Amino acid sequence: MRISALAELSGVPVATIKFYLREGILHSGARTSATQADYDETHVRRIALIRALIGPAGLSISAAKTLIGSLEAPPPEFHDLLGAAHSASPRVMGDVDEATEAEAIGIIERAGWTNCSGENRDALASALAGLRAADFTLKDETFDLYAAAMTTVADDEVRRIPTDSLQAAVEYVLLGTVLVEPVLLAMRRLAHERASARIFADRAAEE
Amino acid sequence: MRISALAELSGVPVATIKFYLREGILHSGARTSATQADYDETHVRRIALIRALIGPAGLSISAAKTLIGSLEAPPPEFHDLLGAAHSASPRVMGDVDEATEAEAIGIIERAGWTNCSGENRDALASALAGLRAADFTLKDETFDLYAAAMTTVADDEVRRIPTDSLQAAVEYVLLGTVLVEPVLLAMRRLAHERASARIFADRAAEE
Repeated sequence: MRISALAELSGVPVATIKFYLREGILHSGARTSATQADYDETHVRRIALIRALIGPAGLSISAAKTLIGSLEAPPPEFHDLLGAAHSASPRVMGDVDEATEAEAIGIIERAGWTNCSGENRDALASALAGLRAADFTLKDETFDLYAAAMTTVADDEVRRIPTDSLQAAVEYVLLGTVLVEPVLLAMRRLAHERASARIFADRAAEE
Repeated sequence: MRISALAELSGVPVATIKFYLREGILHSGARTSATQADYDETHVRRIALIRALIGPAGLSISAAKTLIGSLEAPPPEFHDLLGAAHSASPRVMGDVDEATEAEAIGIIERAGWTNCSGENRDALASALAGLRAADFTLKDETFDLYAAAMTTVADDEVRRIPTDSLQAAVEYVLLGTVLVEPVLLAMRRLAHERASARIFADRAAEE
């Protein structure tokens, strides 16, 4: 199909498709003349993936490109996949002082996450620095409850990684890491609403 | 203090401080002459808060401004606070078709989150649309496990909202909603690493 048909089928303007092509995040079509190329179903699917990554998952074009690159050429060792998934969607880092670094290490030790990568330890420390910068303090028991909840989630996720094909495993790990994040955050907000409604209904009933 | 001292104390360049002032996200100093103003500890704290919101929490300047506005002028009804917190940090929305909308409603009904706001239902549907666009499918039981984990988190959080002062409650809800998100996501990745290491160690031991 021509680029205009690809635009219509994928719901993305021709100018955006040309931008994806220039950025190298969308593979070229088969050239049919000096100014035209032929696109197929693989282009439609790739555009949908790009939209998912830069939309709800919130990746930059460059992070989406890195992640898609890992999908196409996965790291040779299976257990390097998680690292590739985490690096493809780096968290914004803030300044971290020694006290915050120590707080992160304390949480990690209590959760049994020793031998973790420096990247993920720094991401936690940076998130804690954000709380500290806003003078927002949480008790150790709250952090431990968060850690337990995330361990439940991650244990289930890792257990479900398909092992029958490397390509299926790669897609599961890379896409599951970033695409599930907005699902969890939306669910936390829905659960907030429910908890808040219940507590206020209880209080109203007591009065 | 003068703007140069504020810059040094907060670790943010003068040009950035001027940008915050122009955007109205940082309150003006007390004018001391036609070209100079006096800044105090409230400016240092506000800059730290702005950095936390646009850094690890990943808000845009305009979302940070809305959230800070709600901190200063909280909604009159206590239970509108969550809505203000959620609206101040909107998720990027993707296109949602009817099947995805139905999937979101199914998850919400099973979790008992009925009577939720349209905003949060749409955020979940949009996150699910991202998974679907990438051809990434999850079983109902995985969604239900996510819902249970987020319910545990949210129940604890709502229970800890301080009720002794409105200002403390406002800060807790508004900042806790957005600043805790990067903490949870970093923890999920740490837990992935741990689960992955354990599973691969088990497999290696079996061989």
